[in-house]
Amino acid sequence: MAKEQTITKRSEDYSEWYLDVIKEADLADYGPVRGSMVIKPNGYAIWENIQKVLNDKFKKSGIENAYFPSLIPEGYLKKEAKHVEGFAPECFVVTHAGGKSLEEPLVVRPTSETIIYEMFSRWVTSYRDLPLLMNQWVNVLRSEMRTRLFLRTSEFLWQEGHTAHATEKEAGERARQMIDEYADFAKEYLAMPVFVGEKTETERFPGAQTTYTIEGMMQDGKALQSGTSHLLDANFTQAFNIKFLDSDGVEKFVRSTSWGVSTRIIGGIIMTHSDDKGLVLPPKIAPIKAVIIPVYTSDEEKKIVIFRVEQIAKELRDQNLEVKVDNRDLRPGPKFFEWEKKGVPIRIEIGPRDVQNNSAIVVRRDNGEKLVVEFDSLAAEVVTLLDRIQVDIYNRALKFREEHTTIVSNYDELKKSVSTGFAIAHWCGNSECEKKINEETKATIRCIPFDQSKSAGKCIYCGKQSAYQVIFARAY
Amino acid sequence: MAKEQTITKRSEDYSEWYLDVIKEADLADYGPVRGSMVIKPNGYAIWENIQKVLNDKFKKSGIENAYFPSLIPEGYLKKEAKHVEGFAPECFVVTHAGGKSLEEPLVVRPTSETIIYEMFSRWVTSYRDLPLLMNQWVNVLRSEMRTRLFLRTSEFLWQEGHTAHATEKEAGERARQMIDEYADFAKEYLAMPVFVGEKTETERFPGAQTTYTIEGMMQDGKALQSGTSHLLDANFTQAFNIKFLDSDGVEKFVRSTSWGVSTRIIGGIIMTHSDDKGLVLPPKIAPIKAVIIPVYTSDEEKKIVIFRVEQIAKELRDQNLEVKVDNRDLRPGPKFFEWEKKGVPIRIEIGPRDVQNNSAIVVRRDNGEKLVVEFDSLAAEVVTLLDRIQVDIYNRALKFREEHTTIVSNYDELKKSVSTGFAIAHWCGNSECEKKINEETKATIRCIPFDQSKSAGKCIYCGKQSAYQVIFARAY
Repeated sequence: MAKEQTITKRSEDYSEWYLDVIKEADLADYGPVRGSMVIKPNGYAIWENIQKVLNDKFKKSGIENAYFPSLIPEGYLKKEAKHVEGFAPECFVVTHAGGKSLEEPLVVRPTSETIIYEMFSRWVTSYRDLPLLMNQWVNVLRSEMRTRLFLRTSEFLWQEGHTAHATEKEAGERARQMIDEYADFAKEYLAMPVFVGEKTETERFPGAQTTYTIEGMMQDGKALQSGTSHLLDANFTQAFNIKFLDSDGVEKFVRSTSWGVSTRIIGGIIMTHSDDKGLVLPPKIAPIKAVIIPVYTSDEEKKIVIFRVEQIAKELRDQNLEVKVDNRDLRPGPKFFEWEKKGVPIRIEIGPRDVQNNSAIVVRRDNGEKLVVEFDSLAAEVVTLLDRIQVDIYNRALKFREEHTTIVSNYDELKKSVSTGFAIAHWCGNSECEKKINEETKATIRCIPFDQSKSAGKCIYCGKQSAYQVIFARAY
Repeated sequence: MAKEQTITKRSEDYSEWYLDVIKEADLADYGPVRGSMVIKPNGYAIWENIQKVLNDKFKKSGIENAYFPSLIPEGYLKKEAKHVEGFAPECFVVTHAGGKSLEEPLVVRPTSETIIYEMFSRWVTSYRDLPLLMNQWVNVLRSEMRTRLFLRTSEFLWQEGHTAHATEKEAGERARQMIDEYADFAKEYLAMPVFVGEKTETERFPGAQTTYTIEGMMQDGKALQSGTSHLLDANFTQAFNIKFLDSDGVEKFVRSTSWGVSTRIIGGIIMTHSDDKGLVLPPKIAPIKAVIIPVYTSDEEKKIVIFRVEQIAKELRDQNLEVKVDNRDLRPGPKFFEWEKKGVPIRIEIGPRDVQNNSAIVVRRDNGEKLVVEFDSLAAEVVTLLDRIQVDIYNRALKFREEHTTIVSNYDELKKSVSTGFAIAHWCGNSECEKKINEETKATIRCIPFDQSKSAGKCIYCGKQSAYQVIFARAY
């Protein structure tokens, strides 16, 4: 018999398992240049579904899409001191064009604050020009030495939102609103439980006044930063001299925010839900919701079965479900394995006996549960089942996170907890303690979660007074 | 009175008019680096509508979206001799990354054949792996000295489709199918009449065996190449050594195609339909289909009018129409001018008397026609009217093209015709004649149109025997 198990077990080698899942689900491949990635159609279709959902959310909150140039004069990066420090070492630099050496080198955008603010400075003169609420879906480039598909590559796709406001209050509210949108998106669409909170100064976006983040827990207990929103306030707008005449006749600096979600989150989806059989996708984001596999042993059976299968497929499509009929000339077994590996949430098997009984066998990808469903109620049942799977895999991931998150009361407990999951602990706010903990445990502070009682306590490292708890974890 | 006319007349200066329309409709702006363009939300929304339509077409014909890296090793470009000759002089070259000098320079994609074929060569081994039918929506960079918003910029957005096939026949059919899709798209959605045909050898894509094109006529009589499809056959696959084992057991070279439409086509939409008042958009691609402007002179009137306006807006939105209600505190006059400039196909004016009469004034952007329409039938009437406008502006553009296209029988006629439009003439097939005509008239052969009787005749330049007619025009 052919070897069906092509995926390394998670318990054997989690890293290998991750790459095997991507390979077997045909999501992505390494490109020829070190650190580059090709997103194959199966992976890109997930990204397109993410785009649809986020675009709808953005549009509802007044954000419009635009496109800004990918090449940024090197000098722009230098205008904001922390920004250049953070990004210059990662930049790809264009020094020649049209066969000639350029007067000023251009960097390929690692992020677009600087070029966007250059344009904002031309567009904004009065409070009437504000707010500006823009987003773009683009590629960004950051040179990386150690790469891993989706999680860390020298080029990735993302959306980057950029807004400009008349007041710090309004900008602050927007930055907060967008991280809440991301958290809602992660929960409702990706079935991914996330901690939502603020980054410490050490972990902030270079040039931000405040950085908010959503942090998911992967099945190996590590954290994945899955979306961030920054209140840049006047840091960049002062650097780019973006002033406006306010309604009170006073000239003021514009306040800004930026926020983004990238293709990295696809890595997060994989590592939150998938299993040793391959990819598991949240139904709401799965490009194919159900696959129908006709089962037959003779041409006569085939004719009867296929006829019924096409009818069923039409009924499902009439419910706006993306359905795949796999009528390739292969045995059912290998088909089952293939679609399991590819993470299609529901498999429907229809054979001659099923046609006779007016029912199909319906199999859930997430937990293997088999149901016999009558043809008459199949379309409605699939719709219900997809919703149920969406909820179930969220709850499963939440349970996993809860089992792997410990409120620790001493440093030894912290050390132990971060080797298998998250540790919640008091911290004094001092970067030195944060740094020491990182050196000694490899864990970083993922965030100061919003959702906490903010009771007083003692820093897990130095024992000094602490006003709030933070989440420690090793991270991707 | 304020000066309302901010747009140069076409008769005065066509180039200035074009840029004024873009500025006043707020579609795009020049970026800080020479030749770069910012696509502003009003312009990008047009592109998003183009994407939706083309994505649907592609999907129906089996094409899947993917993403390939933007940085290409310089050596890849050199593998296909004509390709490197055509593109190397325009490339932006990355020589540094991560603070270090690169071993091999990378070019930012001017087009992605080479990197895609490198990946195809890894994926294809058997006839079972074929066809590969992929597309990507990306930015591409080509250094340009003389730039013009949308029409020619150093960076632009496009879709580039790339397919790989087992036979030349299949590849040839795909290349032809895609240019037909583009022609249909231009006609049905952009209301843009195009000539569809084959490029001469001189005008072919570097590395292609055959290039098909759609060519539109702008209002100054010049041609705009608006989409191309290339049969590359085995030119690239030999260079990249992409072989497959065919079902007959013989190893063969894969045959390939590529095809693309870019943001350039937005320039084509502008120059096909717009007028001295500003932008005119085909309804099917207009981001806003109708704008409703409440008209009132007192707060009491305002209350009555706004109430009705919101009702009407809801009825229109229930028909899936994107509708804008402009209830800013401005006089109606400036609002009319603004939405005219921005190309919204239908303006609906509702004042107190209209509310009393249960009717609205409906104004067509394209020809200024005013209608009084009862509220009860307004939604249905707007739907019908949008369809009518779509057809009317196509017919108007077609009439313009017919009036400016001449079948010429001698060289003097050709010279005269290409100063105001297209000239159709016999050509012997010799590149020398083509070159001479170009030098003497600034016109190029835009295409050998498919739609011709292929009667025998004499070359317009040398008088030698000719088997078919071609279209000469000056071009953007």
